[in-house]
Amino acid sequence: MKKSSKKEIRKEEYHSPYHGLFFKVKKVHFNEKSPFQKIEVIENDFFGKILIIDNLVQTTEKDEFFYHEMLIHPAFTTHPSPQKILIIGGGDGGALREVLRYQVKEVVLIEIDEKVIEASRKFFPNLSHSFKDKRVKVIIANAAEYIKKLREKFDIVIVDSSDPVGPSKALFQKEFFSSLKKIVKKDGIIIAQTGSPLYHKKIIKELNKFLKKIYKIVKFYISPVPTYPSGIWSFVYLSENINPLDIKRKEPSNLKYYNKDIHLTSFTLPNFIKEILYSYRENLL
Amino acid sequence: MKKSSKKEIRKEEYHSPYHGLFFKVKKVHFNEKSPFQKIEVIENDFFGKILIIDNLVQTTEKDEFFYHEMLIHPAFTTHPSPQKILIIGGGDGGALREVLRYQVKEVVLIEIDEKVIEASRKFFPNLSHSFKDKRVKVIIANAAEYIKKLREKFDIVIVDSSDPVGPSKALFQKEFFSSLKKIVKKDGIIIAQTGSPLYHKKIIKELNKFLKKIYKIVKFYISPVPTYPSGIWSFVYLSENINPLDIKRKEPSNLKYYNKDIHLTSFTLPNFIKEILYSYRENLL
Repeated sequence: MKKSSKKEIRKEEYHSPYHGLFFKVKKVHFNEKSPFQKIEVIENDFFGKILIIDNLVQTTEKDEFFYHEMLIHPAFTTHPSPQKILIIGGGDGGALREVLRYQVKEVVLIEIDEKVIEASRKFFPNLSHSFKDKRVKVIIANAAEYIKKLREKFDIVIVDSSDPVGPSKALFQKEFFSSLKKIVKKDGIIIAQTGSPLYHKKIIKELNKFLKKIYKIVKFYISPVPTYPSGIWSFVYLSENINPLDIKRKEPSNLKYYNKDIHLTSFTLPNFIKEILYSYRENLL
Repeated sequence: MKKSSKKEIRKEEYHSPYHGLFFKVKKVHFNEKSPFQKIEVIENDFFGKILIIDNLVQTTEKDEFFYHEMLIHPAFTTHPSPQKILIIGGGDGGALREVLRYQVKEVVLIEIDEKVIEASRKFFPNLSHSFKDKRVKVIIANAAEYIKKLREKFDIVIVDSSDPVGPSKALFQKEFFSSLKKIVKKDGIIIAQTGSPLYHKKIIKELNKFLKKIYKIVKFYISPVPTYPSGIWSFVYLSENINPLDIKRKEPSNLKYYNKDIHLTSFTLPNFIKEILYSYRENLL
């Protein structure tokens, strides 16, 4: 960290030491090392509290709604009535909060690092209040291993991983997505965050290749997320028989980003992302 | 500038000293003050050359296509045959390059600061090669004043201003947009960049209010631009009788961002931007 006038600067380097976002630090709320990663919560005058794991921004009070709404609502409005939900990762509670806006029976959340939940409970009540809900069951475990032993099946599975480095690396691999298929119902849906189309091109290309061998429907969609690298983020919608554009029910009220038209248009991809997925023109970027 | 290991860091502060983007500087190509502003061209390992005016990123070699394609193609595919074009600002030549992909008779470009054109000619040949085209007439002048005396009318007017501070401030005001109406043909189109929906909320709200009093059709659209504040950028499409969703002809080939579906979906707005424009829910952000 560097001194800048009276305030400290916190830099996030985007998978390269060449550029990234910086935030002036008004206060450091939390700074601990877990067995898995370094977890920090800082205060910034514009973004409010910021959760940083291994030097990468995970969420901020100001702009968390872009990511969390777009991670959850495309699946929950295209499934007619999901009751059993699994969230992998998502220790901040933001995905959980969006899921609990619907009438569901049970949400299982598997987080590898309980320190993330602890930090969120203390400093992000707007996200973590969802942990108090009686429908929620939290399991602290390595999800990639844990799901191999699971015998139940879910209507919707959400993969809310951190970046494809460190403890989340396994959550971007073929073996993991093959195991996932066994725990999702036939008419179920899996959603996974798949990174920045500018910074994770190779990962997205590779995912698309092997996912198409595992699932019948593999559709990528995108959303802006101001504090994630490049400001654009990608997600993948996986199912055997559900059309991601066939919206079956209305979204909850009071959302800040998602609406029906945004849902439909988020599956429209610009040329350079089509190139990543289909290689119809090489070296576009 | 600060020292960071062997490389220097260049920070862009987003209209506040609290946060922004940083770039490691491999080389400083250009650093001059014009009578209007400070102009810099730096080299970064990821984004290539970066044009910075008064400490704000204007364009980078890596991601300029997002902004320039989305500034030009929505108008040029919905007008049946534009022949006389006016670009206000756009001294880097990027908007001009996109316009010249079409068969047009004449493009007039009014730039206030010839030093911007000079810097682009030297360091951004991929943008500025367009200045060599015989159809182009460059005028160095204050556009807000110059257009008041213009007696010709244009099919399409593009307002490619820098941020609404410094010399571009006049290009966001009611008087300017009223003058513009007099120099655009009845079946013409005006496109203006209108800033970040996160950082320029008040400006967008104000623009929308007075533009609706001047033009029959006022439609905002959005696009990601990774190196602009918040990563999301807004534009406005103005006309008297042209429907921005009625695409009349095909875009040029080899575009990196724009395609027909992206055009149609870019007019779909998330809830928090609808709130800015229509105030249907207060204090959403």
